[in-house]
Amino acid sequence: MDDSLLNTINGPEDLRKLEKNSLPRLAQEIRERIISVVSRNGGHLASNLGAVELSMALHLVFESPKDKLIWDVGHQCYTHKLLTGRNKSFDGIRKKDGISGFPKNSESRHDIVETGHASTSISEALGVLTGQEVAGADGAVVAVIGDGAMTGGMAFEALNHAGHLKKQLIVVLNDNTMSISKNVGALTVSGKWLLSSYLSRLFASKRYQRLREKFDQGIKGLPLIGMKLFDLSVRIRKGFKAVLYKESIFSDLGFEYVGPIDGHSITKLKEVFEEVKKIGRPTVVHVVTQKGRGYEHAEGNPTLFHGIAPFTVEDGKLTERASYSFTAAFSDSILRNAESDKRITAITAAMSKGTGLHAFQERFPDRFFDVGIAEEHAVAFAAGQARSGCRPVVAIYSTFMQRTVDQVIHDIALPGLPVVIAMDRAGLVGDDGETHQGIYDIALFKAVPNMTILAPGCRQEMAAAMDYAFRLNSPCMLRYPKGSALGWEDLADPWETGRGKLISEGPSNTLLISPGSLLKEARSATAGLREEGIYCDIYNLRFIKPLDEDYLAELLDSYSNVICIEDAARIGGIGETLASIVQQRQLNCGFAYYGLPDTFYAQGTREELLAEFGLDAAGIIGHIRKSEESELALYSYNRKQKAEGA
Amino acid sequence: MDDSLLNTINGPEDLRKLEKNSLPRLAQEIRERIISVVSRNGGHLASNLGAVELSMALHLVFESPKDKLIWDVGHQCYTHKLLTGRNKSFDGIRKKDGISGFPKNSESRHDIVETGHASTSISEALGVLTGQEVAGADGAVVAVIGDGAMTGGMAFEALNHAGHLKKQLIVVLNDNTMSISKNVGALTVSGKWLLSSYLSRLFASKRYQRLREKFDQGIKGLPLIGMKLFDLSVRIRKGFKAVLYKESIFSDLGFEYVGPIDGHSITKLKEVFEEVKKIGRPTVVHVVTQKGRGYEHAEGNPTLFHGIAPFTVEDGKLTERASYSFTAAFSDSILRNAESDKRITAITAAMSKGTGLHAFQERFPDRFFDVGIAEEHAVAFAAGQARSGCRPVVAIYSTFMQRTVDQVIHDIALPGLPVVIAMDRAGLVGDDGETHQGIYDIALFKAVPNMTILAPGCRQEMAAAMDYAFRLNSPCMLRYPKGSALGWEDLADPWETGRGKLISEGPSNTLLISPGSLLKEARSATAGLREEGIYCDIYNLRFIKPLDEDYLAELLDSYSNVICIEDAARIGGIGETLASIVQQRQLNCGFAYYGLPDTFYAQGTREELLAEFGLDAAGIIGHIRKSEESELALYSYNRKQKAEGA
Repeated sequence: MDDSLLNTINGPEDLRKLEKNSLPRLAQEIRERIISVVSRNGGHLASNLGAVELSMALHLVFESPKDKLIWDVGHQCYTHKLLTGRNKSFDGIRKKDGISGFPKNSESRHDIVETGHASTSISEALGVLTGQEVAGADGAVVAVIGDGAMTGGMAFEALNHAGHLKKQLIVVLNDNTMSISKNVGALTVSGKWLLSSYLSRLFASKRYQRLREKFDQGIKGLPLIGMKLFDLSVRIRKGFKAVLYKESIFSDLGFEYVGPIDGHSITKLKEVFEEVKKIGRPTVVHVVTQKGRGYEHAEGNPTLFHGIAPFTVEDGKLTERASYSFTAAFSDSILRNAESDKRITAITAAMSKGTGLHAFQERFPDRFFDVGIAEEHAVAFAAGQARSGCRPVVAIYSTFMQRTVDQVIHDIALPGLPVVIAMDRAGLVGDDGETHQGIYDIALFKAVPNMTILAPGCRQEMAAAMDYAFRLNSPCMLRYPKGSALGWEDLADPWETGRGKLISEGPSNTLLISPGSLLKEARSATAGLREEGIYCDIYNLRFIKPLDEDYLAELLDSYSNVICIEDAARIGGIGETLASIVQQRQLNCGFAYYGLPDTFYAQGTREELLAEFGLDAAGIIGHIRKSEESELALYSYNRKQKAEGA
Repeated sequence: MDDSLLNTINGPEDLRKLEKNSLPRLAQEIRERIISVVSRNGGHLASNLGAVELSMALHLVFESPKDKLIWDVGHQCYTHKLLTGRNKSFDGIRKKDGISGFPKNSESRHDIVETGHASTSISEALGVLTGQEVAGADGAVVAVIGDGAMTGGMAFEALNHAGHLKKQLIVVLNDNTMSISKNVGALTVSGKWLLSSYLSRLFASKRYQRLREKFDQGIKGLPLIGMKLFDLSVRIRKGFKAVLYKESIFSDLGFEYVGPIDGHSITKLKEVFEEVKKIGRPTVVHVVTQKGRGYEHAEGNPTLFHGIAPFTVEDGKLTERASYSFTAAFSDSILRNAESDKRITAITAAMSKGTGLHAFQERFPDRFFDVGIAEEHAVAFAAGQARSGCRPVVAIYSTFMQRTVDQVIHDIALPGLPVVIAMDRAGLVGDDGETHQGIYDIALFKAVPNMTILAPGCRQEMAAAMDYAFRLNSPCMLRYPKGSALGWEDLADPWETGRGKLISEGPSNTLLISPGSLLKEARSATAGLREEGIYCDIYNLRFIKPLDEDYLAELLDSYSNVICIEDAARIGGIGETLASIVQQRQLNCGFAYYGLPDTFYAQGTREELLAEFGLDAAGIIGHIRKSEESELALYSYNRKQKAEGA
């Protein structure tokens, strides 16, 4: 590796020192490095391969961190990381204690904004820019946003505000629609359509091509044939071959529009950015890139290689075969119900594959709706369908449901509409880190009136929970984790409102309460103890809300010792609710609850994180032992004996 | 009133039977009725006066409820209510047990969608429309949305999706910008600008006027002078004088665009809607109306008359002078801090006046940012400013903060940025009913790591809380109620992290715990009891989060009897947290907590609602008596005596 160019880059200033003709070689080395590491660690591959030249050009022209580069979502920041001193640590990306797969301010002063969720970059960038003015600082501010994230309403809110303020905000629209759609078969790609097809039309239009040709020939301007209304003020800047014109959705919102630019030509990008840096007004630079660029398997299937588990570089095949997941169980359950119930529709927000709805999409294309990256709209749209007599199922990851709290309250719960919301990736999700943990859903939604929240713990329970949800004529959420769903025939019984399932182990003084997402760990813990001759019953909650409190109180009080575990924020979690029931009803049992402490959780595998916070089988065994040995249990046991004696 | 036309209208079918030349008289009667009732009950005046003819024309053309009229926000639905059988009940609008000021499905089958929050109508309408197709139903679906609500990102998400689906969705854009801006002086009107200025330009452009003239002269078409790219497919429909053309931000998103239409000409509106009903593609009808139309005081000051307290019809003056409110205390506090700290900026989302930021806006225009109806953007924008070293204060009503949960978690709390979020209208808000109650904020935000939540209870505490918030170098929220802020010098001490203020009444076994928003009621209750010789101390929480648990536990345990009250959802509230502390620490005190039961709350004054749920002084006295008489208190007292004896 002695002749590696990449190894000589310890910061963007080293990049700027390189000869122009070395840049393609560096781009090639970066691609190889990304492919090699992602094939081992998993991660966002296609988006990062598409943004290699774009990231290089930005760092060539803008002087980070004085100039601020803000990456939307952040799933395209690997080249940026490699160019800003993180080549060595890149091997540990997305691993426990390694660098993050997303920008992280604590990791580098070049990562201005931590991200993970979409459509925030323009808001943040406009804030940074106006904040600089108040604080008396300066530097260019650039938001890099994909065409998918651009469909999120917040991006529009920010564009509207920025156009109004007329500050020098630079928005780089990284548009890879065309390269994706070319490669997609029966399934349509999510969240792109209109805005994108609009962009594509812009790019493909004969008029644009004609203008472009003329400009490239050096003709300076065009007769403005009766276009006063549209004020087609075409301008060519010296040495700047790209087209600048005012006709686009962005110019309607007060932006200058530049593009489309070939996003794989460093030379062209550099020229454009140098010009744009001088404009002094809000500007959108429309860059066209190819997802997966330079790795044939990713070019051929950019959706699969968007976020990918470890794979073999040679053939692009996944290293491990995925087990039957909760996602698959959900997918099977909705399909089964939808066969007989023609009112069932399915809605997602650019998570068709991730939520397992692609099977529904193929089977019932007329009842399937992917609204793009637009979670708020997805939920209110579902409300509308329910008003027309449908039974919509909205499938969105737990972390992204944070976007929809108001719509859940205002549009679903208040009118009490029978919408089913499937929150996949609930609990600790692992490699994506802080921004993607699904640990707030219980706290956020348990306070919502009219809401039912279910927590299935295996395949059979997923089926029963979905059946229950469809029987219900009111709002219902399901929360279930990333990972495999085991099959347990003893849990196949239908669900009763507010009641969980007692899994009895024999003569036991101790009860372990668990939501479905930790049932595997709970059963593994009690099985371990049983081998030592220690018995601990499990109460699989099934319902986060409502709770049959009378039933629950009687159950709890029949044990000396009760422990509740949950893979959610301890504050506001189900444990807190149960503690308040124990307190209010003055139950005689000892009660302890374990959830996630009040902080953010960096990446690691789900298993590593569960172990770290005492929620794997070993940790749970520890909690059980501790509580059995506690004075509290003894105290409770004595009180109970006394009560029975009396 | 025997010759009243309005009294003959029991449903839209009666409207459709009227002679064409009676319609202006009916419009006039409707205006008088609205002015008269709103002058007594308070309510949204300007928006409703602006939508009289529009609502009539919609009901003349579309057959509600088979055709669905969906009102965005719903603050313009009074004419709709008067035309759909609610003329008699209109006197009780916004009063306890009366009809709602917003559309309400349970009130009338003509109210398709309950609303109150902005920018949801297009999503809901698109859902209703696609749902109808799945369910095999039909009928036109019309969303009526103002130019203010159109700036909300969710509206854009829905437009983008609708344009893609190409269904016959009719969006009526009720644009009243021009009439507002004309009448506004130094303050700029919130949330309008760009999209609006774009719309105004469209309207005002010479080209438009020229086209219009030609069309009105009956000329059928125009030479398409070299405009292939723009495909200016101008069409005139028979008998339809309005202009249909494709050039607008809406046509970029796949909509037909029709307009602008004079929103006070029933004839013109009717013609247009009849044509639009036949188009069969997504269509935006751009209607220009005047806020406050027909009532000179409202025309002259539409911002004041947007949502107004009772007033005298003759002079437009408010009936009662408002007392010094928490809003005013906040306004004074931020101003005072901003004088010395130049880093402080203020941000709101079209609530400049309501949040009391208009004073800041006048004093520090360069540090003030009204982003329009765009709460998500407001919060992420604040994050950006904090990254540049500012100390942004975001002021948004509690109910609208439900829109920003993800931005608070992802953009503020995760990076730990020093943003202050002022949640006005926390707790029960009163007349606006279900959609506006600020009762979920505690449950939603107490689980967010790095977050501090303060609850000031009087003027002095507002000042101290703001001082504390600005000293803090991390995220901080304040929650405070609508209504008057009393002055209590005994509460002027600076705040200590996690600790509240003990207001001791003398020798007392009972402690009443209250957040600031109920401190007035709490003090009134204990004062009442004192007169009977019963003493009850108050612990004014000050901090919802964090809590100094050791301090709190010791304090609680020094009483036999502890009662917690809160004007927030009982599930997930502060009482639940305290109950879990009492349980986990096995405190010897009796503990009961009272919050709002798990349902939605219709309108009434704040005082009426507090009384209904036992949170006014009388109710609190009842809780105290009950708990003092309870076995629990006795039990606790005995245990304590025993413990002290041991």
